[in-house]
Amino acid sequence: MSVVVDFSLEQMSRARVSLLTTFLDRYFEDRKEMLPHHRRLQESLRYSLLQEGSKRFRPVLAMLTAEALGHASERVLPLAAAVECIHTYSLIHDDLPAMDDDDMRRGKPTNHKVYGEATAILAGDALLTEAFQIIADQCSWEPAIAIRLVSEVARAAGLHGMVGGQAIDMGSKKESITLDELRIMHRMKTGALIRVSGVGAAIYCRASEEKLAQISVFADNLGLAFQVSDDLLDYDPEKPEPGSYPALLGVEKTREFLNELTNTCLAALRDWPASADPLRAIARYNRDREL
Amino acid sequence: MSVVVDFSLEQMSRARVSLLTTFLDRYFEDRKEMLPHHRRLQESLRYSLLQEGSKRFRPVLAMLTAEALGHASERVLPLAAAVECIHTYSLIHDDLPAMDDDDMRRGKPTNHKVYGEATAILAGDALLTEAFQIIADQCSWEPAIAIRLVSEVARAAGLHGMVGGQAIDMGSKKESITLDELRIMHRMKTGALIRVSGVGAAIYCRASEEKLAQISVFADNLGLAFQVSDDLLDYDPEKPEPGSYPALLGVEKTREFLNELTNTCLAALRDWPASADPLRAIARYNRDREL
Repeated sequence: MSVVVDFSLEQMSRARVSLLTTFLDRYFEDRKEMLPHHRRLQESLRYSLLQEGSKRFRPVLAMLTAEALGHASERVLPLAAAVECIHTYSLIHDDLPAMDDDDMRRGKPTNHKVYGEATAILAGDALLTEAFQIIADQCSWEPAIAIRLVSEVARAAGLHGMVGGQAIDMGSKKESITLDELRIMHRMKTGALIRVSGVGAAIYCRASEEKLAQISVFADNLGLAFQVSDDLLDYDPEKPEPGSYPALLGVEKTREFLNELTNTCLAALRDWPASADPLRAIARYNRDREL
Repeated sequence: MSVVVDFSLEQMSRARVSLLTTFLDRYFEDRKEMLPHHRRLQESLRYSLLQEGSKRFRPVLAMLTAEALGHASERVLPLAAAVECIHTYSLIHDDLPAMDDDDMRRGKPTNHKVYGEATAILAGDALLTEAFQIIADQCSWEPAIAIRLVSEVARAAGLHGMVGGQAIDMGSKKESITLDELRIMHRMKTGALIRVSGVGAAIYCRASEEKLAQISVFADNLGLAFQVSDDLLDYDPEKPEPGSYPALLGVEKTREFLNELTNTCLAALRDWPASADPLRAIARYNRDREL
């Protein structure tokens, strides 16, 4: 089923994904003059970052937000690239033997399976660092906006955002997690970076504080809605995944919850013009994909 | 012998180190409301960051640079804290089993020995991210300076700086490394972050481009001089460490090299006032510590 999702999002965003890929490919271009082990690190980073089969959900959300606000996708490319670097680093580190110990991702061997653990750890570290370099260098013409973006992205990715959420996820006994803890974990682990993709794009486009608040509600609830809908798609009544929404709430109440989240998304953009229709379409598409 | 070094640097910088520790302790304060595994991550990060026995060489260099330029140490605390977070994360990741596999550091069990590998990886990731958050949030009153600092620090820490240098160090066969490769490796792995501690402080203090160039030469050569002098201190003629300066150059030529680097440091600050004497003292002290 997840193939259907990939396909449809891809359809919607092919041109935007191609803009992003070109940007990242150029930024991390092969440099022949590097020492061999330096080049190998660069190669491993490119392996994960430029892999086909990535949905590029966060960058596409950033670009669609810019378009909804009347700007070109290109405007928010540095933010989109930075957020994708951070997402990719988190996958490389999460796949490590000490973490989730995954051998395959997107149908290919994980980074450490190809390049070894040491290089995979360093590739993740490099991607996280370069994310901030990209924002700082590519937006330096507008320092006040750039520094706000650095702050927002770091908050979303750091101790009280993605990394903290990953620690909660790794450490929790899924059997005994409460609904509140599950929501906190998801908001931190995946929600925060999704939220900053929308909010950061709006900051970039000098949106009003009102619009910022609206896209924040939209992206925040969309992130959670994606998680809930993933849980529904993965749901197996014979073997319910402990610590998933259907296991905690039952299928009916989980569907209701997904509807509520989607309605909150749509309500947040109520006053946005037709240029926000692709954002609305994502929220509706996510709600209906498991039906 | 390294006890002597620690002691003397500590003597010189006790008040400054205490400023830094208070800043870091407050920034990463215990938050009782955190979920248990989130708090554990925070605890592991504090374990490495606030450990006694750290020389705080980079932050002290930043503070002494500020003082040399006529400013109070406090001014550059956010930069000093950020650089120390990055240094600490690099030690946590370098100690991991997949990297150097060290059980002890500064006389205490390494982070992963106490908290496990997964938490140690995440603690490093969090420290790196928070470094940028600190710069962005604490210097936001001066966005043009703040964004330049983010850029310089990311460049020093990232793919073409510290992380790249670590990849070269991990991958190199020490027996066959050339002098040029060794210098490139050290400049990237340790030199870049030391350099940005001085240069970043000067940027912070709105130093002229001329002064920036001078402190850059000073810090760049001081970083390498420290490495060379460490190699001399560790030198055992019976068992010379492959890929060290004495092994490659011989002891006499290594001493000459250390003298040259120290002279370059001192020449760079020739026109700086007496307030730069502590910087000069560090360079001289490093040259003479093995005699």
